[in-house]
Amino acid sequence: MSIYVVGHKIPDSDSICGAIALAYLKNQIGEPAIATRLGEPSPETQFILDKFDFEAPELKLSYAGEQVYIVDHSEVTQAPDDIAEATIVGIVDHHKLGDLTTSTPLECWIRPVGCSNTVIKMMYDFYNVEIPKDIAGIMMCAILSDTVIFKSPTCTTADIRCVEALAEIAGIEDFKAVGMEMFNVKSDVKGAKPRELVMRDFKDFNMNDNLIGIGQLEVVDLSVFDDIKADLEADIAALKEEGNRHTVMLLLTDIMKEGSELLVVSDDADLSKKAYKIASENGRSWLPGVLSRKKQVVPPLQEVFA
Amino acid sequence: MSIYVVGHKIPDSDSICGAIALAYLKNQIGEPAIATRLGEPSPETQFILDKFDFEAPELKLSYAGEQVYIVDHSEVTQAPDDIAEATIVGIVDHHKLGDLTTSTPLECWIRPVGCSNTVIKMMYDFYNVEIPKDIAGIMMCAILSDTVIFKSPTCTTADIRCVEALAEIAGIEDFKAVGMEMFNVKSDVKGAKPRELVMRDFKDFNMNDNLIGIGQLEVVDLSVFDDIKADLEADIAALKEEGNRHTVMLLLTDIMKEGSELLVVSDDADLSKKAYKIASENGRSWLPGVLSRKKQVVPPLQEVFA
Repeated sequence: MSIYVVGHKIPDSDSICGAIALAYLKNQIGEPAIATRLGEPSPETQFILDKFDFEAPELKLSYAGEQVYIVDHSEVTQAPDDIAEATIVGIVDHHKLGDLTTSTPLECWIRPVGCSNTVIKMMYDFYNVEIPKDIAGIMMCAILSDTVIFKSPTCTTADIRCVEALAEIAGIEDFKAVGMEMFNVKSDVKGAKPRELVMRDFKDFNMNDNLIGIGQLEVVDLSVFDDIKADLEADIAALKEEGNRHTVMLLLTDIMKEGSELLVVSDDADLSKKAYKIASENGRSWLPGVLSRKKQVVPPLQEVFA
Repeated sequence: MSIYVVGHKIPDSDSICGAIALAYLKNQIGEPAIATRLGEPSPETQFILDKFDFEAPELKLSYAGEQVYIVDHSEVTQAPDDIAEATIVGIVDHHKLGDLTTSTPLECWIRPVGCSNTVIKMMYDFYNVEIPKDIAGIMMCAILSDTVIFKSPTCTTADIRCVEALAEIAGIEDFKAVGMEMFNVKSDVKGAKPRELVMRDFKDFNMNDNLIGIGQLEVVDLSVFDDIKADLEADIAALKEEGNRHTVMLLLTDIMKEGSELLVVSDDADLSKKAYKIASENGRSWLPGVLSRKKQVVPPLQEVFA
């Protein structure tokens, strides 16, 4: 029976590239595995897949009765809807430990690094399996994406060494240029509907039984949002109501200025002030230096809800 | 600030030896760490500590505000009482994934092998740190204990290779003889009070909001319990009431006959039949081939409570 290797809902490049890379590794060590996905690839991810000539993994939403290897999360809200009816055989991740539990022993490769693909590279090294050139390419891009080309505070020495090694395998000399090319694709929001943009990289968290949704858009220049910011705000307000969420946040991250504009709709008008010590005006605030949802946005929120 | 490395409540040899071995490794890689414990060493663990000339780790029950590396579990019920006020920086384990969660990224070295010390050996290999002779000895004993000298269905090739490597480092030729010596110490129940025996290796599990306590005594001959079985049963009944538990089980495991007598007191009179397909008489049943709480006793129970 094959293992399905799947990342989180609303997959990002780490989830999609990680599923492909890990499924390949598993097959090499004699454990049949199939990469799958829980949603459509983002434009950034599609750029990576096209660049290294990959098809997107199979779209598969139901896993009842199957063996599943989870990539890039350990949260029930981000996992397949019927994950409780599946057997989780492993988790590779780089986030806080979430609320997924299992009834049988499993393997967890979780490290406080910038990207799941950095951990997957450690798995290749552990099993002594050679990484094919094209898989090295997508792994490298996933790490450059998650670490914002090493600018994110989540980026570690391990991530940088890993990108350097993968770039060499992939035969890429200027990996930073590839990273910028990727972020330029990501910055193209023209013609996209507000909902499509809000959901491009959106994660739900269960914080002490409050559902908190947090989206993030990383661009090279925030001015691309000037004409659509009000529409984005209307959409996160709608999303809050539709999902009975306590709060929806949208981070508009400027990777060159290295900070984020935070848009918030919440049952608690003072939430962003409580969490980030910066008052918001009309649900907007500028958070200097904030690039990482996982390291800079989620933990202070968890403290507020603890 | 030092990291405290601590195993589960009612520590077994894996928890105590693992805390010592992991704290040593962390110190070697420049992360100051202190091994601690949540309870008294069992006679088996004391035998191991004495044999390789170690003091028991420091007894420490409160971890609020501290950094903690968790050994041999990922369950809230088995962790320090105030773990929610500590920062979990890592988990090394070989059980099902429990309900511990964190608000910040961490490292998890969890593998479906027979013993946490087998995973800790992988960590030594990863960091390329030499294992001192005496630490190799206690790690070896912990693996021989958890795998019942390789008889347990939880035992994997990785555990066997690991014991062989550690025995060589420790300069021990006949490691199976050391294992039998250890289990003979474990089989000495003379003079011990029923509560002391029941609690010697006892773990609580939260199964769908029901508290289930499961103790295990592994001996080389079950006849040592002939005169005290009724007292043990009276004690698990008392333990059930004291802790508002749904069920308390006690496994009397015969490591030579390779099976366990199961003593049960439960709110559900049919529980052991539902879980193990073997009817109990007066709360007793013989489970042939059952040596492992984690692999053979807990998962079927989880299914019943799912």
